[in-house]
Amino acid sequence: MRRVAIIGTGLIGASIGLRLKAAGNIPDLEVAGFDQNPAAGRLARSSGAVDVSYRDAADAVREASLVILCTPVLALRKVMKEIAPALEENAIITDTGSTKTDVMRWAEQELPRKVSFIGGHPMAGKTQAGPGFSEAALFEGARWVIVPPADVAESALETVQGLVKTMGATGMFMDAEEHDSYVAAISHLPQLAATAMFTLAHGSEAWPELSLLAAGGFRDSTRLAGTEPNVAYDIAVTNRTQIIHWLERYREALGELQDQLAAEGGEEELFRHIAQSSWDYTNFVNGEVGRTEIDERGDGPKAFDLTQLLIGEALAEKIRNLADSSEKRLDKAERERRLRRDE
Amino acid sequence: MRRVAIIGTGLIGASIGLRLKAAGNIPDLEVAGFDQNPAAGRLARSSGAVDVSYRDAADAVREASLVILCTPVLALRKVMKEIAPALEENAIITDTGSTKTDVMRWAEQELPRKVSFIGGHPMAGKTQAGPGFSEAALFEGARWVIVPPADVAESALETVQGLVKTMGATGMFMDAEEHDSYVAAISHLPQLAATAMFTLAHGSEAWPELSLLAAGGFRDSTRLAGTEPNVAYDIAVTNRTQIIHWLERYREALGELQDQLAAEGGEEELFRHIAQSSWDYTNFVNGEVGRTEIDERGDGPKAFDLTQLLIGEALAEKIRNLADSSEKRLDKAERERRLRRDE
Repeated sequence: MRRVAIIGTGLIGASIGLRLKAAGNIPDLEVAGFDQNPAAGRLARSSGAVDVSYRDAADAVREASLVILCTPVLALRKVMKEIAPALEENAIITDTGSTKTDVMRWAEQELPRKVSFIGGHPMAGKTQAGPGFSEAALFEGARWVIVPPADVAESALETVQGLVKTMGATGMFMDAEEHDSYVAAISHLPQLAATAMFTLAHGSEAWPELSLLAAGGFRDSTRLAGTEPNVAYDIAVTNRTQIIHWLERYREALGELQDQLAAEGGEEELFRHIAQSSWDYTNFVNGEVGRTEIDERGDGPKAFDLTQLLIGEALAEKIRNLADSSEKRLDKAERERRLRRDE
Repeated sequence: MRRVAIIGTGLIGASIGLRLKAAGNIPDLEVAGFDQNPAAGRLARSSGAVDVSYRDAADAVREASLVILCTPVLALRKVMKEIAPALEENAIITDTGSTKTDVMRWAEQELPRKVSFIGGHPMAGKTQAGPGFSEAALFEGARWVIVPPADVAESALETVQGLVKTMGATGMFMDAEEHDSYVAAISHLPQLAATAMFTLAHGSEAWPELSLLAAGGFRDSTRLAGTEPNVAYDIAVTNRTQIIHWLERYREALGELQDQLAAEGGEEELFRHIAQSSWDYTNFVNGEVGRTEIDERGDGPKAFDLTQLLIGEALAEKIRNLADSSEKRLDKAERERRLRRDE
């Protein structure tokens, strides 16, 4: 029997369990689970995500050769303390927490030297929490960040890489600080931005009307505001410095757009900004990601010329319309002058 | 024969045509179309969105009792000038433009007195433009803002209301300024915010890594950055004042979150902010919209008590974790003091 323990059988933990068992590539696999919420523990067992659910985290990890910690980030340190005395010699521990710098330090402080800890972060998820939303295919095609400590044992690394592969994901190695700065930009900033935008609209006196008019665009833009509060909060407080840095830059970027919008004659700059962003976004969702692909684009003139073309063509039409628009502004300025004169 | 003319047979115009013809409630209906892009005109005809496609907007509106203008906003004034001489007496003109103050003024200036213009704005769409993405069900269940001028003819209003109903949408009356301030908050702000966020990440040196790590959350948050540039730009420049107002408030809201994140001991406030927003967002997507529903919630204590309960329960756990977290921060401060001492 080979025991794998999953501590925290919510959305992520239960999805890992389902996939491990569906993959069928570990002979005599037994998946042991623990969740501090007994209902989540029962649901994980009845859905088949785990074979056995324990009332105590320490009991779940006993005899486990691989332990996967899937709690919200701020609970990880406490969980590490709890399981530390029960861990097997040479057990391999990994986690799925959304920030890594604090987690790597906690592991060094709390786990015994006889085990190997390797940090992990699957770049997949849902805003809905809980095992009820789990699915074996959750990580299919996703990137899975692997953060090895400096003194990592080769065999432990292979086990974690094997786990990532079994999940259908692609491993990406990086150090904890790198990871935290990257996810601050593409995950934590969007989340707090969604919270700020939703709070702003919801707090408006016009919310009854706004909520009726709000269509798919608003819902998508603010979807991350619906993230489970414990998850969102833990991320925020364990990655403060990086998030503050990106919030600051985001506010500057918004200010730049605002200036372009407010500037007399700033139309062409504003249009180029919007068009370039639209072009880049479309390439991004069409799969232009990573360094290789971008380097290739840099070498081949095709994509770049096309950008110029698109913007050039669209601009030609804009220039005609802008003429109308400037005319209109002059009209308006003229009318206002006349109004003032008449007063 | 009753002729309806659709000027601009892109996504919106072609979807209206498809639905008009599918509804089958107008006897002897003929839908005439025009698009400045001949390929879009042909596609609208071959897909059945229009019965006949003209090379000239004026030809399309001749003999039409209802004319629907579906071009990007900045093209509307030019289109009004072009069709004005060809319009029938008592023809009813409406539009689908995303901003309304300028459009209402242009209609007053450019259209002859013998026709009725009523502004319109269906709160539905896609980021993909063009007739290739059109569908008869695009407006099903959506709100459709109707902006009548002060001197509106009752019969004209009934026709536009009938059109909205045929589309499967629900009409909402408001004046142009109200409309523009509402959509600035829930449509134009999210769009420019997506542009700013995507431009920021894309412009980062780490974009090769960021683009690989970016999962559904980032894609959804920045989806509106992919809006067709002409549409996005026209909205921006015809609703400047309102958008600038909301951009300003959004930057303040982000600053408030940033302050809560940076403040020593601001954890509880930050958690309440995140949890309240998550709760409100969930209620919103579950259909708690409009004035009636909100008033009802205000009367019934159920929803409100539940909020308190959720936050209370989550807070209880947080307090334990916060203790760990503060301990950690003290540890860190202590370590840093020691490091400085050792130097």
